Amino acid sequence: MALSAYFNKIRSEVEGALDRLVPKIGAYPPVIHESMRYSLFAGGKRLRPMLALAACDCVGGERKSALAFACAIEIIHTYTLIHDDLPAIDNDDMRRGKPTNHKKFGEATAILAGDGLLTLAFEIMTGSPQADGASAQTLLEVTAQTARAAGSTGTVGGQVADIASEGCEPDGALLEYIHSHKTGKLITASVRGGAMIGGAQDDQLRALTDYGKHIGLAFQIVDDILDIEGDEKKLGKNLRSDIKKEKMTYPSVAGMEESKKRAVELSGIAVESLEMFGSSARHLKDLAMYITTRTF
Amino acid sequence: MALSAYFNKIRSEVEGALDRLVPKIGAYPPVIHESMRYSLFAGGKRLRPMLALAACDCVGGERKSALAFACAIEIIHTYTLIHDDLPAIDNDDMRRGKPTNHKKFGEATAILAGDGLLTLAFEIMTGSPQADGASAQTLLEVTAQTARAAGSTGTVGGQVADIASEGCEPDGALLEYIHSHKTGKLITASVRGGAMIGGAQDDQLRALTDYGKHIGLAFQIVDDILDIEGDEKKLGKNLRSDIKKEKMTYPSVAGMEESKKRAVELSGIAVESLEMFGSSARHLKDLAMYITTRTF
Repeated sequence: MALSAYFNKIRSEVEGALDRLVPKIGAYPPVIHESMRYSLFAGGKRLRPMLALAACDCVGGERKSALAFACAIEIIHTYTLIHDDLPAIDNDDMRRGKPTNHKKFGEATAILAGDGLLTLAFEIMTGSPQADGASAQTLLEVTAQTARAAGSTGTVGGQVADIASEGCEPDGALLEYIHSHKTGKLITASVRGGAMIGGAQDDQLRALTDYGKHIGLAFQIVDDILDIEGDEKKLGKNLRSDIKKEKMTYPSVAGMEESKKRAVELSGIAVESLEMFGSSARHLKDLAMYITTRTF
Repeated sequence: MALSAYFNKIRSEVEGALDRLVPKIGAYPPVIHESMRYSLFAGGKRLRPMLALAACDCVGGERKSALAFACAIEIIHTYTLIHDDLPAIDNDDMRRGKPTNHKKFGEATAILAGDGLLTLAFEIMTGSPQADGASAQTLLEVTAQTARAAGSTGTVGGQVADIASEGCEPDGALLEYIHSHKTGKLITASVRGGAMIGGAQDDQLRALTDYGKHIGLAFQIVDDILDIEGDEKKLGKNLRSDIKKEKMTYPSVAGMEESKKRAVELSGIAVESLEMFGSSARHLKDLAMYITTRTF
């Protein structure tokens, strides 16, 4: 499915804000900013910013107050891709139809571009003006929870477990750990952060956390499926890479049919958890649907 | 010179707090936490936390309110060492008398341990209880300024310029950029952050910023000198590495005698900028002296 005009609008808001928030290529030293921008503007779907902004909208918040946070989440996501692609980690040459960052700029610059992006994300989360926005206390809480989601007991921990699992026997519990940490926690943090900045009440936040957890897992299962059945041209990366690296994936543990069924099921549970919001949640519902039907 | 009992006390406060703030080795996945702790507890001088805490004390703040920030700065410093030592960057095998992180744990884990530490630092800066401490607004400002100091126009930018300068003709302006960014900005941010959490007034903060800039540069000049004239055993790393890598250093640009003179001069200017504080600044003065006379 194609995303609605609402998301095209959001996407263009995010692209504009990212361009303003990230140092220009000319900023000294130029090579690091060229490298950071190369990966940041390589055609990402901007799914995490969309989730953050739609969650802010859903609870009646001012979308622009969550825009800096939404960009910061995308910047964190981009750093994880650059570092994961490095020769010492996944050793991938192509990403979104282009050479990966280290293929283009060399390993040293790619490592430092990732570091620069991660650091910039926290500068943006804590240093952007709060016009019409959340309190300083809320921004602190959002930043701390995002860091926790991205760190060694979140995204980084999931990546470590993912590497360790290569070549191991299928193990459902370990796979769930990998998926929920490597991808799920940051997706949930995107939804929660947007909602908190938008002024979510406790019960709203609980419902949106449930939504985030379920779409996060659905997203990763679809990722695993696309690595086997996807269109290499559309996806812009080398497929069957999970199989080549003997990675533990949902299809390798549960089979392809069961994986497809599970992704749809999870998306359904995510949509159900939005019931209390009525039509305010329509865009988040669209995103849940998009996540399970996407082809790239 | 040996540091006073005051700094031994501070050091033990910092060691205790770091141990509490960083996930235990048993935390899943164990290898990443073992790796993060390996470098964090490898015998660092804890200079940056000392600066932060002494600056907080100097303006009459409650030292314990800046303890989490002081630890976060040390954690950022540790991540920069892990990533700088990587084969793709400085390719160093020894640090503080032990194998570097990637020599002990492999490159993938070392990259991810650095990422985990950097992320943890921001979690700690924004997520620690503020008992007796600064306002949420101040903590946001301190976090944003620290991120700016550590990022692509700060520490990371300095590292990029440092790599690019290898083998180039001596260039005083470029060298100043490298030193002030690679080391100076984070040292200044340590002093400023501690002072802001301690409730510094604007004129106090300006004076302490001056102090930070001058000791930051002095510290890096001494580092360059020790790489040539230091004791390999005391320093715990392979010396003459700057010369082997044809790095641009203060002695290579200005000569050894001029470098020594300049370090003492900078430390003197730093001490002068503390005049308004009277005896409250005695510990910061001790640190300025320590920085120029240290042998490791």
